[in-house]
Amino acid sequence: MAAIPHELLNVDLGIHDTKHHLSDTRNEASISMKRLMGGLSEGVDVVTFTNGRLTLQVLPTRGMGIWKGEIDGIPLQWHSPVERPVHPAFVDPMRRGGIGWLDGFNELICRCGLGWHGAPGTDRILDESGNVVSEQFLPLHGRIANLPAHRVVGTVDADFLQLTGYVDEASMFGGRLQLESTLKSAANSTEFEIVDVVTNRGSQTAEVEMLYHCNIGEPFLDAGSMCHTASTELAPRDAHAAQDMSMWNVYHGPTAGYSEQVYFTKAASDGQGLGVGVLTNAESSLAFCVRFDTSTLPWFVLWKNTQARNDGYVTGLEPGSSFPNVREVERRSGRVISLAPGASVTFRLSFEVATDKSRVHQILEEVTALQVATPRTTHATPKPEWSAH
Amino acid sequence: MAAIPHELLNVDLGIHDTKHHLSDTRNEASISMKRLMGGLSEGVDVVTFTNGRLTLQVLPTRGMGIWKGEIDGIPLQWHSPVERPVHPAFVDPMRRGGIGWLDGFNELICRCGLGWHGAPGTDRILDESGNVVSEQFLPLHGRIANLPAHRVVGTVDADFLQLTGYVDEASMFGGRLQLESTLKSAANSTEFEIVDVVTNRGSQTAEVEMLYHCNIGEPFLDAGSMCHTASTELAPRDAHAAQDMSMWNVYHGPTAGYSEQVYFTKAASDGQGLGVGVLTNAESSLAFCVRFDTSTLPWFVLWKNTQARNDGYVTGLEPGSSFPNVREVERRSGRVISLAPGASVTFRLSFEVATDKSRVHQILEEVTALQVATPRTTHATPKPEWSAH
Amino acid sequence: MAAIPHELLNVDLGIHDTKHHLSDTRNEASISMKRLMGGLSEGVDVVTFTNGRLTLQVLPTRGMGIWKGEIDGIPLQWHSPVERPVHPAFVDPMRRGGIGWLDGFNELICRCGLGWHGAPGTDRILDESGNVVSEQFLPLHGRIANLPAHRVVGTVDADFLQLTGYVDEASMFGGRLQLESTLKSAANSTEFEIVDVVTNRGSQTAEVEMLYHCNIGEPFLDAGSMCHTASTELAPRDAHAAQDMSMWNVYHGPTAGYSEQVYFTKAASDGQGLGVGVLTNAESSLAFCVRFDTSTLPWFVLWKNTQARNDGYVTGLEPGSSFPNVREVERRSGRVISLAPGASVTFRLSFEVATDKSRVHQILEEVTALQVATPRTTHATPKPEWSAH
Repeated sequence: MAAIPHELLNVDLGIHDTKHHLSDTRNEASISMKRLMGGLSEGVDVVTFTNGRLTLQVLPTRGMGIWKGEIDGIPLQWHSPVERPVHPAFVDPMRRGGIGWLDGFNELICRCGLGWHGAPGTDRILDESGNVVSEQFLPLHGRIANLPAHRVVGTVDADFLQLTGYVDEASMFGGRLQLESTLKSAANSTEFEIVDVVTNRGSQTAEVEMLYHCNIGEPFLDAGSMCHTASTELAPRDAHAAQDMSMWNVYHGPTAGYSEQVYFTKAASDGQGLGVGVLTNAESSLAFCVRFDTSTLPWFVLWKNTQARNDGYVTGLEPGSSFPNVREVERRSGRVISLAPGASVTFRLSFEVATDKSRVHQILEEVTALQVATPRTTHATPKPEWSAH
Repeated sequence: MAAIPHELLNVDLGIHDTKHHLSDTRNEASISMKRLMGGLSEGVDVVTFTNGRLTLQVLPTRGMGIWKGEIDGIPLQWHSPVERPVHPAFVDPMRRGGIGWLDGFNELICRCGLGWHGAPGTDRILDESGNVVSEQFLPLHGRIANLPAHRVVGTVDADFLQLTGYVDEASMFGGRLQLESTLKSAANSTEFEIVDVVTNRGSQTAEVEMLYHCNIGEPFLDAGSMCHTASTELAPRDAHAAQDMSMWNVYHGPTAGYSEQVYFTKAASDGQGLGVGVLTNAESSLAFCVRFDTSTLPWFVLWKNTQARNDGYVTGLEPGSSFPNVREVERRSGRVISLAPGASVTFRLSFEVATDKSRVHQILEEVTALQVATPRTTHATPKPEWSAH
Repeated sequence: MAAIPHELLNVDLGIHDTKHHLSDTRNEASISMKRLMGGLSEGVDVVTFTNGRLTLQVLPTRGMGIWKGEIDGIPLQWHSPVERPVHPAFVDPMRRGGIGWLDGFNELICRCGLGWHGAPGTDRILDESGNVVSEQFLPLHGRIANLPAHRVVGTVDADFLQLTGYVDEASMFGGRLQLESTLKSAANSTEFEIVDVVTNRGSQTAEVEMLYHCNIGEPFLDAGSMCHTASTELAPRDAHAAQDMSMWNVYHGPTAGYSEQVYFTKAASDGQGLGVGVLTNAESSLAFCVRFDTSTLPWFVLWKNTQARNDGYVTGLEPGSSFPNVREVERRSGRVISLAPGASVTFRLSFEVATDKSRVHQILEEVTALQVATPRTTHATPKPEWSAH
């Protein structure tokens, strides 16, 4: 009696190969790569990025998304009904009327973009007289999360480590964007940084939309959790979100049948031009914090999805270059980035995880100070320029 | 002069690895796994499951379907125009108006399900007033045949062998079903058994439909072959099938241009709650028999497809939890399984292959006795509750 | 400090394996196979076919297309926005309204076919009274470029080398075509030959359309390049092409915003039944020449796409069994091949690359002689039988 060890999800296929393992003898930091086997994960590469305290599992095969992490033994993750990383070959974005993207959705941080993100729908290009010049159905959240990096390079030295991946989003007669994505962290830090450069390598002006879908579950999210963010303007996405405006940034515990509620904000900027969003647990002993450069990520979306654990108990803190509406709405409102041939746009985000009350307290004081300094207009109902269809 | 050995379809990539080969010194039974290379089969895992007399080739990569088998040197298979196992990455269910599933169809036994099966079409969910709440296009025969198992475990001991695979059919906002599929056989037996447990791992009630597409060609199928089954009710699927009601269970030889004919039945149950379907060759010297638990598989569909050999000369004996109509039809008629959160449904089937006339005779007597004990209503034309569109 | 060598695109995975390397000690010719890793190229096999002077990179994974080549240090290629060979698992032909094929388009020579090629659109089969019997949406350029060969065999001896690949294009209820594709070259030759046999392995009559999309960029294409071809009839595809009839076979340099122009011709045949198309650079020092058997490839299409370099500066010389309109148009005009069960059709093409002025001059004299011998009708506007929609 014996078992065929086909459950190979955690088998390392190259971790003992020095070419796939980088480390520095002066600290505990390292970068290594393995390839998953079995099920929908077959062929997915995972890079384990550890600064000695904080560990992140990066997925080059899924557009350099960050699957999950861990700090001080505390998991940074959520539990999607899709339990394992899904190889893009198994994702058909056109499934379910254009929301097939959800078949592979389970990351801590995944990008929506590059050419578009947001709800599926028909994008019509109009001429000056308002006639339809061309139209194209754009499925949910774009291509980037299902495009593999063709090049990944890592660096580990005494003080810090860094991982860069290159992902092409191109097609003949369909644009030529490239993402150069860099993940950085200092040794033993509680922080990490993402610097993404998107370049238009084609000869025609290109449209770019980017949204960072940063998704956190327990233990950061629980009944009584709050999202702290500073904004100059706040509105519910739709009537369903409007019903709970008074509790817009407070969370329920896992609730079977809860239907997602989404809030749109214009982020306030601090002296360095940074916006901020923080999720704290009810006890305020844990915080997951994202700071983002508002010069290219002026909008911050809060996705509340406190469904039952088995359906995905999670919230999304989502800095974006635009709102996740169909691109036509965003274009009309001037929120789509227009990149000249050869031009680039850089998106900068830094993340901090606080695991003790005093640091959580400091972070919340920072957010409060920023909000106090910047008056906020709150809309009780959806703002037409933000939510039009 | 030499050849590049790229024709690697039959190359074993792990069969000599003891981790991928299970056997017991006390018998000839074994379970081993290899991976196919080349063409559309690249990356498809095949588990060879042999009880010493009966051999089955199982495809973990294709939802634990059974590609083909052999007993006493007699092949259990049919010849599809699709000649080799197809990796799901090459199957687009939306192709050809939603029948892309057929691009990978060539198994002896393949599952249609889990969330739905049957003809492609739009599934509309209605509220109590009959208004459309949501609608979704569902392509032919569901997802399960194109989802790979993420875990496969085998056992071989002196008396019997067993193989279990786990397949997830899940999506964010799209349900969370899991198939635990077990294949069993006693050493040197002419029988094998399938026990499939489908569990709703989500927190919302889920719909389940399952159909076992058991497909047999020559030498079991020939001119004058018959399908013997006991049923309480029988109807042609459509007008084309109705034309040949008097010959509904008798087969032609390979016939170029034959257009498939399908018959729907409600299976009769024996004292143990089992239904039965048997294909015999014209000589009644060979029989392929399926028995199935009618508590969860109450329906039995006969698919006659006696096309020319090159187009796929085959018949399907298909126990189902529902008929292969669009799900909306099945829901309206109350044939869709509703699984509460955490609940499971078990599908049980046992197969027997008889290769001598005396055993064939015994099996047919069993079927006759059951049919005699349970009167049958035969409809000359399609039954509206079964075939409505 | 060290780099993870994930940029593995040029890593050979089997080239040192004698089973994957064929050579003959009497010359410099060889055939070898490697597998690409990383990005969208993961899993793509590349066969390097070298006759000692001319090298071609063949892609069994992409229907035996020829990615690129080199002769005397001069590249035979173009630069698509899609920079690397794309595994078919990453190509969804239904994307962008049915032009997803373009996501993987970057070859020197790629086949469009086998069952259809040309513009995406609905193909309606009509009965004799003109009623629609069936209809199916057919995406751009068919399936063959995204189907992997399941068998590849090579031969190298003292005088010549040859590579044959077998690709199935089949589906249950969807036809059963097979391509047997052979690439041949003599040692140290400036020529190579393609012999493609397409066989209908089903039992029903099958339709076949084939187009050889031969795509060349710099240095063969430059400002002042010309396409020389002999034809009996010439017409612009559409009004946009008609605008520049006087310059129909003369090329611009890279031009940002240039919109493709396409010209349709009926090829003239020489004494051996061959048609010819030649691209020369402005200086007439380089020529890329294709000769083709007009008995099965009677049409020659010129695709001018002198966009900016970054968008794909390229022209296509395209011998075809039909024009690249939707199949319904081609059927109506009698240009679709009808293959009886078991029947085959053979497509023959030979290519020559000239790298000195004297040989270029000889080739152009051959084309001129053929054109002079066969009067040409030139249409200033689209010919309805060729361009109807």
